[in-house]
Amino acid sequence: MRTLGIGLIGTGFMGRAHALAFRQVSAVFELPMHLRLVALADSDPARAERCAAAWGFEQACDWQALIADPRIDLVAITTPNALHCPMALAALEAGKAVYCEKPLAVSLDQAALLHRAAQAAGVVTRVGFNYQHNPMIERLRQMIAAGELGEILAFQGEFSEDFMADPQAPFSWRCDPMQAGGALADLGSHLLGMARHLLGEVEAVCADLRTVHKQREGRVIEVDDQASALLRFANGASGAISTSWLKQGYKNHLSFEISGTLGTVAFDQERLNELRLYRRGGEGFQRLLAGPDLPGYAAFSPAPGHQLGYNELKTLEVHELIMALSGATKAGSDFEDAWQVERMTAAIRLAAAQERWVRLASL
Amino acid sequence: MRTLGIGLIGTGFMGRAHALAFRQVSAVFELPMHLRLVALADSDPARAERCAAAWGFEQACDWQALIADPRIDLVAITTPNALHCPMALAALEAGKAVYCEKPLAVSLDQAALLHRAAQAAGVVTRVGFNYQHNPMIERLRQMIAAGELGEILAFQGEFSEDFMADPQAPFSWRCDPMQAGGALADLGSHLLGMARHLLGEVEAVCADLRTVHKQREGRVIEVDDQASALLRFANGASGAISTSWLKQGYKNHLSFEISGTLGTVAFDQERLNELRLYRRGGEGFQRLLAGPDLPGYAAFSPAPGHQLGYNELKTLEVHELIMALSGATKAGSDFEDAWQVERMTAAIRLAAAQERWVRLASL
Amino acid sequence: MRTLGIGLIGTGFMGRAHALAFRQVSAVFELPMHLRLVALADSDPARAERCAAAWGFEQACDWQALIADPRIDLVAITTPNALHCPMALAALEAGKAVYCEKPLAVSLDQAALLHRAAQAAGVVTRVGFNYQHNPMIERLRQMIAAGELGEILAFQGEFSEDFMADPQAPFSWRCDPMQAGGALADLGSHLLGMARHLLGEVEAVCADLRTVHKQREGRVIEVDDQASALLRFANGASGAISTSWLKQGYKNHLSFEISGTLGTVAFDQERLNELRLYRRGGEGFQRLLAGPDLPGYAAFSPAPGHQLGYNELKTLEVHELIMALSGATKAGSDFEDAWQVERMTAAIRLAAAQERWVRLASL
Amino acid sequence: MRTLGIGLIGTGFMGRAHALAFRQVSAVFELPMHLRLVALADSDPARAERCAAAWGFEQACDWQALIADPRIDLVAITTPNALHCPMALAALEAGKAVYCEKPLAVSLDQAALLHRAAQAAGVVTRVGFNYQHNPMIERLRQMIAAGELGEILAFQGEFSEDFMADPQAPFSWRCDPMQAGGALADLGSHLLGMARHLLGEVEAVCADLRTVHKQREGRVIEVDDQASALLRFANGASGAISTSWLKQGYKNHLSFEISGTLGTVAFDQERLNELRLYRRGGEGFQRLLAGPDLPGYAAFSPAPGHQLGYNELKTLEVHELIMALSGATKAGSDFEDAWQVERMTAAIRLAAAQERWVRLASL
Repeated sequence: MRTLGIGLIGTGFMGRAHALAFRQVSAVFELPMHLRLVALADSDPARAERCAAAWGFEQACDWQALIADPRIDLVAITTPNALHCPMALAALEAGKAVYCEKPLAVSLDQAALLHRAAQAAGVVTRVGFNYQHNPMIERLRQMIAAGELGEILAFQGEFSEDFMADPQAPFSWRCDPMQAGGALADLGSHLLGMARHLLGEVEAVCADLRTVHKQREGRVIEVDDQASALLRFANGASGAISTSWLKQGYKNHLSFEISGTLGTVAFDQERLNELRLYRRGGEGFQRLLAGPDLPGYAAFSPAPGHQLGYNELKTLEVHELIMALSGATKAGSDFEDAWQVERMTAAIRLAAAQERWVRLASL
Repeated sequence: MRTLGIGLIGTGFMGRAHALAFRQVSAVFELPMHLRLVALADSDPARAERCAAAWGFEQACDWQALIADPRIDLVAITTPNALHCPMALAALEAGKAVYCEKPLAVSLDQAALLHRAAQAAGVVTRVGFNYQHNPMIERLRQMIAAGELGEILAFQGEFSEDFMADPQAPFSWRCDPMQAGGALADLGSHLLGMARHLLGEVEAVCADLRTVHKQREGRVIEVDDQASALLRFANGASGAISTSWLKQGYKNHLSFEISGTLGTVAFDQERLNELRLYRRGGEGFQRLLAGPDLPGYAAFSPAPGHQLGYNELKTLEVHELIMALSGATKAGSDFEDAWQVERMTAAIRLAAAQERWVRLASL
Repeated sequence: MRTLGIGLIGTGFMGRAHALAFRQVSAVFELPMHLRLVALADSDPARAERCAAAWGFEQACDWQALIADPRIDLVAITTPNALHCPMALAALEAGKAVYCEKPLAVSLDQAALLHRAAQAAGVVTRVGFNYQHNPMIERLRQMIAAGELGEILAFQGEFSEDFMADPQAPFSWRCDPMQAGGALADLGSHLLGMARHLLGEVEAVCADLRTVHKQREGRVIEVDDQASALLRFANGASGAISTSWLKQGYKNHLSFEISGTLGTVAFDQERLNELRLYRRGGEGFQRLLAGPDLPGYAAFSPAPGHQLGYNELKTLEVHELIMALSGATKAGSDFEDAWQVERMTAAIRLAAAQERWVRLASL
Repeated sequence: MRTLGIGLIGTGFMGRAHALAFRQVSAVFELPMHLRLVALADSDPARAERCAAAWGFEQACDWQALIADPRIDLVAITTPNALHCPMALAALEAGKAVYCEKPLAVSLDQAALLHRAAQAAGVVTRVGFNYQHNPMIERLRQMIAAGELGEILAFQGEFSEDFMADPQAPFSWRCDPMQAGGALADLGSHLLGMARHLLGEVEAVCADLRTVHKQREGRVIEVDDQASALLRFANGASGAISTSWLKQGYKNHLSFEISGTLGTVAFDQERLNELRLYRRGGEGFQRLLAGPDLPGYAAFSPAPGHQLGYNELKTLEVHELIMALSGATKAGSDFEDAWQVERMTAAIRLAAAQERWVRLASL
């Protein structure tokens, strides 16, 4: 059985989430490859050493050495956003498969550059839109594809949290437009990626953005605190979305409803193991609980109703990546998908700035 | 105690709802007036006679005689939409107070005409935006006015039902643009009226309308099946709304969330006795149940959690009208408010047709 | 059309609820009789006069005169519990139909006496178990009768409120065992009546009662604050119930689940227009909303999802009574049913006192 | 840093869950010991080899060799219930710490034997009552201990699933009384363990058990399909519980409410990241979402609302065990606790068989 050499860059929250997923995936799934955790890189060498030991990586090193290491086939990048581009480009140039956290880039130009570089390199790439790997989302995607909801008429969604609701919340990279800051980029991109994952391409948008708290820690804030937009999908469906990191009470409220001629379905990431579904002629909305009829769930539990956690979605994401590296049909989001999401957020910013509808084809 | 002579035109669903409210209001509230149910009019005289007897009106007559009757002080109009304008104008000319079902008119011009006529007549007018009379809505309005939610940042709302979801659903006045047809006029106007009731004026809109089922019973459909819009409120808040009469599974889903710097509140007309509320720093969203701390509820029950029904909101609406006729401060929607809601729907139609933002001041 | 002369005794909360229902029922339903509100009685004659005028009764009088009045066919009793027995007996002796609020009596002996007197009089009697008149409960009753849930296996229920949770809550008739005081009698009897209404007779019980707050306003409390019991139904089903008036947060939580071999259904009076239903092989629990497919709902609204209120259940109760007086099949609870519920509460008290299972047949 | 040698017996669903937890725990927590996965045993040697390789154990062997292996300090047992006793006794005799899946034993005598053997051995023992390791349950336990709910008055709970609802469901060890079969043992023991974990000892019970489907695959069924019981806690609280594996629609419905003089709290394992809480004087029930204010949650995610999954509760269980092995205060359930739960189920069986209240002190 082939061995897949893995190098991970970054040891923060997402770095650890990657490490947990790489450790867990071979016990959860029967894999077509043997995974080898070759090296872990971090800007703080001591931290890299400590985490490598705790997480089971063979060695710690700097990121350039990691990319150059011939034993490494797959480079996972979980560093701050502005570093994604140079690291991913270097890895692509070295012919490595690349698994990069979202957002892929901090500008549309950068995303386009990375997309083209990935095409040129001809390797497998992935971007960590982890919510898309929820088995309930896969179930929903298949329902739509099979026509169970009929013609899709509308998508209403929001992604709201409240971690920036306090005007005293500190300035951070999330407030920096050069780091892909703002609620639209940070949260809205997940929602837009999900909408596209389920309904396909968006053709036009109009939008409204607002910076509510105009200073934080004495620094002027240029990024949005909340955004809303209308969407027109290529399939004819209409969309209305909102995102905010100021909305009191919500913690992870990536929430949407999709309605079609044959049914309506609703999802809320704060209850990630559930769907709410109405089928035409039904008695009422049903609450569906995740269970082992979904392959992604069955890998973790043979019993329904036991629930997956957020970290396990990451394991499912890594599994899809490994299967893609083994030749399976693409199911996850790659650099092209991430670039398309960047185009959506760029179109929304332009539409808001110019107070008009923007066709994505015009970008 | 003064006697208020009441004449009611129309004996359909809303006609009966008015009659029930007029009968119930004096047993529920201690009123400053004695109510006298003088006359009931309907285009079908036999039906008028039968309903007058069952509902306790002294006599049946035609609508012109009803308006001319000197014993009648208040004319209630529950006829098809296109008849609202001539009847209300006649009643205003006769110096009567007018209580008209929504929509007040079938065009913006008509609504403006009625608004000006009411101003000229100097009488009390009311339009039946019954959902606004829910004690939980009044509680929410007071919370906002008192600053309990802080600065209001956003309104997200939808009003969805599914009674037209079947493409075979018959053509009716609701499909006729000359009768104020379409989901936006029929359902959306309630949502827009509610948004304005709670947050104040809207300054600009952009929108998207769609007719999904383009024929019904062989007739071409010109009105919208679903609509979505972005709103900018004068108070700085952003809005995103949707309405549809095709959305499978919903029966009376006038639903919205209002978020401010100090809290978030959510309401759904399908659970009209509840609010979902988060206050900054709270442990989680709370489910509030209507109870006798709300005067409108206490009138019906001394015990919390017993729930009001839809018809009782109508009784509360009639109570507010009677109090206004007795000199109390205006709390309900009058012809001016109804005209403002017509301006909102007109602006949304224009914005959708021209694919641009429309300022209401430009109408 | 025959005229039904109505006399109402009592002008408190339930007195007004009766008056509202008598006023509303003829506008909501086409009745086979004409209702005449003949007389209203109250121990306070001035109050009786005032309420008679406001509620539309022809005159006020004392209760003995009311019962003796030959124009009165139906006597409605809404006085304090201890007065139910003498008033109802007098009305039965006078050959009147009797509509008495619950609890019918303050002891099992009294209830048995009233039951036998009603049998002897051969008149229609009713007791105000108003929650049973909810159209959703009727729907559920029919589902069970039609076998849609299969063989019924279990009933789990509770009726909890918190209006006595404060140890400083004043001593009232509800604390007096001679007035049918205690949580079991006040709340539990509704739950037991509902269980019997839906599942049929209970054969045996064991139970646990507790008085948590042993004094109120310096007076010793002898009645229970909370109770729990196991039930064995004649149909083989098992029951487990609880009741409390100390349970913080609940306002009207008459809540239960019924499970059978083919499905499970759940109801909560705090959301009286909903059922939660799972059918064998279904995708998940469904939320059913009341709508006009239910006759009792259709009488109030042609549109689903608009919701009935508590007072409207009373109108439905009065409608059933009028239909029974017109010869329709009995559907509501009469004095015999109320006596059976008294037997259940008596058996529960005995089982708790003697710490053993009690067969109802042994009472 | 000390090394903890681990041997795992069993490779089924729970065997893998243990393996996943042992793998994950050192990446999630900073541990005071180094974990070494020494050996994996299974009755099928080939399967043991295969799983050892996939799960990262150094070798496969038979269970006797595993227990005898001096490198192994901790023996984890996940075999069929009837094997728990001989294996655990052997491990205790060998002086090893023992971590056994629930139920610890298949009879009260066996449980008592194991409890005494553990006391004699003086080693750390644990039994896998995994639901108790949910950070939300720990939060609730601390709330109760701190008096936030006041004096505890009542516990109402049920544990219902529907995996045996089909009368054609095959006969399995779960149907065998010699294997600790039946809904009470299989599901009810979790609920009883939880009640005791949160409220302390139960003093007396009365109960009702029922076998609904009396044959499966032609074999007579002696174990219960559903059970209900009343409980009296030593702290004065009353309990009412039910359990069933026939209740249509439920998948993992370990659900309960605890009410006290200062509040009420509700939990449902089907939404394991939530609590529903009412505090005296509050506006309504609140929905609390798990977040990083809970240490057990923070170990997995720094962001609230991201949700833990069932498998992660196992990791928390293993963490508590490792901390106990390092000298921390006992927080998890050991053999004594498991024996106490066996006493509760034995008392319930006796109470049902003899139709009387049973004092646990009399067992």
